[in-house]
Amino acid sequence: MQTKRLGRQTVALSRPPSVVSFACIGGKMEGQGPLADYFDLLHPDSFFGAKTWEQGESAMQRKVLRKALEKGGLTPEDLDYVLAGDLLNQCIGTSFGLREFQIPFFGLYGACSTMGESLALASLLIDGGFARMAGAMTSSHYCTAERQYRMPVPYGSQRAPTAQWTATAAGCCILGAQGDGPYITHVTCGRIVDKGITDANNMGAAMAPAAYDTLAAHFRETGRKPEDYDLILTGDLGVLGHEIVMDFFLHDGLDLRRNYLDCGMLLYDLQGQDMHAGASGCGCSAAVLNGYLLRGMREKRWNRILFAPTGALLSPTSSFQGESIPSICHAVVFSNQKEADR
Amino acid sequence: MQTKRLGRQTVALSRPPSVVSFACIGGKMEGQGPLADYFDLLHPDSFFGAKTWEQGESAMQRKVLRKALEKGGLTPEDLDYVLAGDLLNQCIGTSFGLREFQIPFFGLYGACSTMGESLALASLLIDGGFARMAGAMTSSHYCTAERQYRMPVPYGSQRAPTAQWTATAAGCCILGAQGDGPYITHVTCGRIVDKGITDANNMGAAMAPAAYDTLAAHFRETGRKPEDYDLILTGDLGVLGHEIVMDFFLHDGLDLRRNYLDCGMLLYDLQGQDMHAGASGCGCSAAVLNGYLLRGMREKRWNRILFAPTGALLSPTSSFQGESIPSICHAVVFSNQKEADR
Repeated sequence: MQTKRLGRQTVALSRPPSVVSFACIGGKMEGQGPLADYFDLLHPDSFFGAKTWEQGESAMQRKVLRKALEKGGLTPEDLDYVLAGDLLNQCIGTSFGLREFQIPFFGLYGACSTMGESLALASLLIDGGFARMAGAMTSSHYCTAERQYRMPVPYGSQRAPTAQWTATAAGCCILGAQGDGPYITHVTCGRIVDKGITDANNMGAAMAPAAYDTLAAHFRETGRKPEDYDLILTGDLGVLGHEIVMDFFLHDGLDLRRNYLDCGMLLYDLQGQDMHAGASGCGCSAAVLNGYLLRGMREKRWNRILFAPTGALLSPTSSFQGESIPSICHAVVFSNQKEADR
Repeated sequence: MQTKRLGRQTVALSRPPSVVSFACIGGKMEGQGPLADYFDLLHPDSFFGAKTWEQGESAMQRKVLRKALEKGGLTPEDLDYVLAGDLLNQCIGTSFGLREFQIPFFGLYGACSTMGESLALASLLIDGGFARMAGAMTSSHYCTAERQYRMPVPYGSQRAPTAQWTATAAGCCILGAQGDGPYITHVTCGRIVDKGITDANNMGAAMAPAAYDTLAAHFRETGRKPEDYDLILTGDLGVLGHEIVMDFFLHDGLDLRRNYLDCGMLLYDLQGQDMHAGASGCGCSAAVLNGYLLRGMREKRWNRILFAPTGALLSPTSSFQGESIPSICHAVVFSNQKEADR
């Protein structure tokens, strides 16, 4: 069975799991952005029917899982596992959001790489024969993230030009051993990369080296080139991080300009909505994937996507103690063909 | 391949992964406890050579992984994955502890169930043919946990009689497709259980229902009885939680008195060290396993152990908002025989 491993980081799935259902939910700002039409649910305020923002974030996870199940004609009992996490301390968005479902649960912490990490592990569990169906999901919330990582929103702190805007959004993708695609054909697991960036207001720069590390490993180990993909999407590097990744690859003689974008550049109208360097948060790549991207794949707008969410593994405490920002990026390949051969 | 699933939560591994190496590290209190002789490394202070307690916790993870690799005659390149997490906000004990190793990394959040969760996922990845060798690890630290969850240690707050003492300890277990055992033969994945307990100073009571849920599922799905195990060990329920779990099973007509213990009762001399209800923290079950238990299995003191760490998925924020305490318990079976048949 060891032949599944193409290299240190990449596995080619021998029985590629299929997307069975997907859903995403967002708040007010997401509903005013260019991807509004791709959301299954949009809530006019940031509480999602709950009393606090943290409870609102849990409500988002609950609602988005319910919606994904409903769209697939499924019940919680159909899922053998759910793999999820979020940005909140002790991942309470997830644990309180999922507690009523009684689905066997593996809790993850991958910061904004969580959508990639959860898809990677769900795919491996299904390909390994341990699950028939599994859910992968995550969320983030502007107001919970601001008060936890930076300042409470009502303080009205000024944001740096390199700052990104944490998405109030959640996405859920249900994978299954059976289905009509898109399929996950490859998983490239990330490593922790830390190039010494310490500016917590410039996450794009901190995470770009991790994105480069994982994408480079993917190309090296699969023997594929960037042009083998209709679209390459990193998580939430934003405008700056996206440029840095393109620069890194240009040094290697690879031109990513034609087909490389970042989820953080897509969720909002950056100028019109005054979003500085772009969107961020676990919910950014989760919502972009589980709406715009997967719907586009089903409509054959794209046939093969390399999806690579990036996460910054810092905490306010580590920054206060002068530490730099370790980052990680987990990548999966979505394809409309079951490409088991390569 | 679906026959691997014995039921909703339990998988029987068809090629049980073997323990290849293991190590544990502790601090001053752990060195004064009854399991002192089973630690590979004991540090006289709580900084582990670092400047802050959080950096000390990272140092513990770094040192314990190095030690486990060294004891197994391995290098970081031999590990295809490492799966780990901790209790700190954003799991910085893990991300800063592991950043120099460059091992493909899946970050977990399972609170004090992390040793069980990481072993479960590592086993599945190896059994599925995705890895030849993988590390499972976690840590906790009394001083980082106190100031994050309760009060900074220098305040000298009085502790409730039901309170437990967060272990300053870390443990690492390296599993491989090849090896002479002990083997992991079964994985029972936990579900989130929340029975409405809100007292954050009585974690044993909060987590006991989760332990019962997972152990009951394990017995039901494997057809095994408690007496099929030489030892059943929950994570860190402490004295009170241990009693509650025994009570639950007594109601089902099962007597666990003969062979059921809790890791939280073993790490310290509860009376002599004034530890109230016992030890807790991810590092508690991690250190008890990766020293006392696995050494005992290699010496044939026990041949079959059901190891079931428990985690409370709360945060200070969720408690401040009046929420109850969702919990989870992940169980794995260690056996000196490769029992692939059942």
